[in-house]
Amino acid sequence: MTLNWSRLQDRMEHLRANKLFETFVIAVIIASALLIGAKTYEQSSRFDQWINWLDLGVTLFFLFEIMVRMAAEKRFINFFKQGWNIFDFVIVVASLVPINESEMVLIARLLRVFRVLRLVSLIPELRVLLAALVKSIPRMGYVALLMFIIFYIYAAIGSFMFNSVDPVLWGNITISMLTLFRVATFEDWTDVMYATMVDYPYSWIFYLTFIFLTAFVFLNMMIGIVLDVMQKESEAQQLESGEGEAADVHWMREHMAQMSEQLHRIERQLEQQQGGKE
Amino acid sequence: MTLNWSRLQDRMEHLRANKLFETFVIAVIIASALLIGAKTYEQSSRFDQWINWLDLGVTLFFLFEIMVRMAAEKRFINFFKQGWNIFDFVIVVASLVPINESEMVLIARLLRVFRVLRLVSLIPELRVLLAALVKSIPRMGYVALLMFIIFYIYAAIGSFMFNSVDPVLWGNITISMLTLFRVATFEDWTDVMYATMVDYPYSWIFYLTFIFLTAFVFLNMMIGIVLDVMQKESEAQQLESGEGEAADVHWMREHMAQMSEQLHRIERQLEQQQGGKE
Amino acid sequence: MTLNWSRLQDRMEHLRANKLFETFVIAVIIASALLIGAKTYEQSSRFDQWINWLDLGVTLFFLFEIMVRMAAEKRFINFFKQGWNIFDFVIVVASLVPINESEMVLIARLLRVFRVLRLVSLIPELRVLLAALVKSIPRMGYVALLMFIIFYIYAAIGSFMFNSVDPVLWGNITISMLTLFRVATFEDWTDVMYATMVDYPYSWIFYLTFIFLTAFVFLNMMIGIVLDVMQKESEAQQLESGEGEAADVHWMREHMAQMSEQLHRIERQLEQQQGGKE
Amino acid sequence: MTLNWSRLQDRMEHLRANKLFETFVIAVIIASALLIGAKTYEQSSRFDQWINWLDLGVTLFFLFEIMVRMAAEKRFINFFKQGWNIFDFVIVVASLVPINESEMVLIARLLRVFRVLRLVSLIPELRVLLAALVKSIPRMGYVALLMFIIFYIYAAIGSFMFNSVDPVLWGNITISMLTLFRVATFEDWTDVMYATMVDYPYSWIFYLTFIFLTAFVFLNMMIGIVLDVMQKESEAQQLESGEGEAADVHWMREHMAQMSEQLHRIERQLEQQQGGKE
Repeated sequence: MTLNWSRLQDRMEHLRANKLFETFVIAVIIASALLIGAKTYEQSSRFDQWINWLDLGVTLFFLFEIMVRMAAEKRFINFFKQGWNIFDFVIVVASLVPINESEMVLIARLLRVFRVLRLVSLIPELRVLLAALVKSIPRMGYVALLMFIIFYIYAAIGSFMFNSVDPVLWGNITISMLTLFRVATFEDWTDVMYATMVDYPYSWIFYLTFIFLTAFVFLNMMIGIVLDVMQKESEAQQLESGEGEAADVHWMREHMAQMSEQLHRIERQLEQQQGGKE
Repeated sequence: MTLNWSRLQDRMEHLRANKLFETFVIAVIIASALLIGAKTYEQSSRFDQWINWLDLGVTLFFLFEIMVRMAAEKRFINFFKQGWNIFDFVIVVASLVPINESEMVLIARLLRVFRVLRLVSLIPELRVLLAALVKSIPRMGYVALLMFIIFYIYAAIGSFMFNSVDPVLWGNITISMLTLFRVATFEDWTDVMYATMVDYPYSWIFYLTFIFLTAFVFLNMMIGIVLDVMQKESEAQQLESGEGEAADVHWMREHMAQMSEQLHRIERQLEQQQGGKE
Repeated sequence: MTLNWSRLQDRMEHLRANKLFETFVIAVIIASALLIGAKTYEQSSRFDQWINWLDLGVTLFFLFEIMVRMAAEKRFINFFKQGWNIFDFVIVVASLVPINESEMVLIARLLRVFRVLRLVSLIPELRVLLAALVKSIPRMGYVALLMFIIFYIYAAIGSFMFNSVDPVLWGNITISMLTLFRVATFEDWTDVMYATMVDYPYSWIFYLTFIFLTAFVFLNMMIGIVLDVMQKESEAQQLESGEGEAADVHWMREHMAQMSEQLHRIERQLEQQQGGKE
Repeated sequence: MTLNWSRLQDRMEHLRANKLFETFVIAVIIASALLIGAKTYEQSSRFDQWINWLDLGVTLFFLFEIMVRMAAEKRFINFFKQGWNIFDFVIVVASLVPINESEMVLIARLLRVFRVLRLVSLIPELRVLLAALVKSIPRMGYVALLMFIIFYIYAAIGSFMFNSVDPVLWGNITISMLTLFRVATFEDWTDVMYATMVDYPYSWIFYLTFIFLTAFVFLNMMIGIVLDVMQKESEAQQLESGEGEAADVHWMREHMAQMSEQLHRIERQLEQQQGGKE
């Protein structure tokens, strides 16, 4: 029995590593994405049934694929040590839950949508890209906090002062922050301003200072990321190559110290010669 | 008495440096921010009273905290030597002024909003960030002046020519500058243009040159900041590390001069040997 | 006969390389561009006829010019080995097809428009520029794929949820993606949001997360290109010049190795002297 | 007489170089700018008269100032060798022309607006800034040409196809280019698109390809400028300082060649000694 299991595991590992199998999995994910897209068009009921059958097929194949990957692990628990595997597992299991109530249809559909994200977990280049994106988030932490404080203060002032002008835009602090985000994207921000300028003729100061502040902080945030990425990239390059200017300079520094010692020895020898003669 | 005061001062200094106390102050500031947010929602009068009590509590705690920090200073005057302390002091004192008149309610509320800024004065990372932002302003001084001149000239031309078309947008030079800022943010700028193009069919030249000029100057302003920040960052890094390529090169240059002298001495000795023999 | 052909070929090659002929071709292309522009204005029928005669002239000249270039090639097939030649050939041949039906007029006109692109194929600087642009596309491949996945997922969610709110904007996944592109360009995106917020008050989360995601990924895409271009440019410069810091450092490294050997030889000689004396 | 003239010239030169006089000129320019601004507000006729008197004063002072600068030159013709002087001269002379007809009032006013630009000619930092801006234009020449070709082609296609949909937006190639510029700034571009999508359901391809193309080319243009500016800046810095890494490396290279020669001489001497002994 143990032998059989071990043999099965080996076969699963081979299957998982198989390029053709991998390509097929990607094809099925793309097919499932197209199915989701097709569902958004209005269809005849017959076509609808076809789609449901195809959808069931995709669900079962995903179940099979995840079981292959689980079986391919030496230890079952290793499977859950990778974040992407947990993500895949949740997506597959959740789509197995039978849906009877009409209320749940929307949630089931949304779950199927997230299957498309499995593309990211399967294509290594996309995984690397996403990891890089996620890594650049923490650096912006404090700038984001500063941005939030600016938004909060302006939203508080806005809802105290302009609430009477237009409660739809300035009703409470949450709505005001949404309105300010709109202003920050320049989306019909003059309509918002002109409305408040009827009651408060100098309220353009409020909007202009807000726009300058957010634009200014955002610009600095952007530069921060650029600098960060550039620095890491150049460091990585130098480590990788071991060549280039920096490596040359380092080699020269060490070599020069050695040459200097040599010169000292030569000088001492000449002095000894001199001394010997005299 | 002097002894007592000195002991109190020590205790205050300990309290101020206490991590727990600091965290509690930050918590109170965030609570006060949430209170301000809560006030923007419509409430039952009972809930309103609760908020007023909490607000009073926050005010008294801030008073206590600022007195702790004042007492912790060796010399009372030192407290006011730091810009952020003055800022905190003004915020705290201003919120102590009793408000009876309904007219003053708005101002009192706004003052409470600025309490949120105390977060910036308390979290060192935010203080550093803000200092960096403030530092990058002067460099842009002349570009901002050039930008203002462009705006002023176009606003003057605009209000002379388009005043008859739409006095709401081009009534005087101030309004015209606001309208031009709107055009610069691309906010419904074609509506403004189409209106003037009825009377002045070639007025699109006015808008297009303005957009190109401001976009161009703004772009240069942005690049200026990027370059400035990058330069400072790299300088700071080299000073910090004392390592890296630049340090290596500097070390080599000095070392090489020394080696050159050594070679001169060797040569002279050899010549003396030669001379001695002949 | 062969001789004649060879002589003709030589003359054609001379004509093709002639600066004046080249300038004249560029002038004809610009004239044809102006003709196309002129056609978009409403004209009297007489002026229209003039334009048609000019158009025929341009077509015939282009035919003549391409035959010159074909004849100038040593081997006829070489002509089709360059992408731009094929492009020119298709444009010229297609505009020779006689148009009788009114349906075809539009297509014929569009073909004439693409003649303007021949400017790019004739001016070397533009060809270099375009080649550089095309080269920078593949690098963005995976980022574009990630962007597309984000759009697809949000479009699917959008058309499932908001289809009932506004089928014009969220009718199916294609329309939804177009609507999301509109949101990504900040074009009246609040109108789209406010409409869905009536039924789904929390749908602002959908829009805000989408805007942050796309802006964030786009920013990284931009930085990626900048870094790539900068790296290539600096490499190209160093290869070109053979001077500058990097070249100096490389020269020094090689030279230093040689000096080190010299010192070794000197030391050995001195030791021999010493040995000879003792 | 010649002596007198020479003495006058010296005094004029002193006056021109006088810091106080320079500051006063700047103050008058700012005053004239404020006058222009004041004129855009509606005034009582009395206030209007005051402004006219002040305006006359400014005009006469400018005349005096330019005569001082002319007289200060050793040779009269030198004055016109500087571009900014010609600019100042034209502005001053043009505002001297008496205006009687009401038609000319507008032009006279516009001329007075351009006086504000004299600030740029007087403040050296602004002149440097403007020179840098102007210098960065030619580099973008071919990119701008490519951009124009893209606009022209799309405008031609647009006016052929969408003329029937909306002649106000697509009437002829000039209007179409203006409409496309609007699309490129994302200004209500969906309104333009939705209108044509009624007749041509696939016209979104037209807009999307246009937006991607222009955004892509614009991005490359921007990067081009950034790279250019950075390169020049760093070169300028190195030339200025004569210090830093690059200077060190260059010094080292030359010095090393010298050391190498020294070593050669030492080696030869040692060989001679060896030879002499044997």
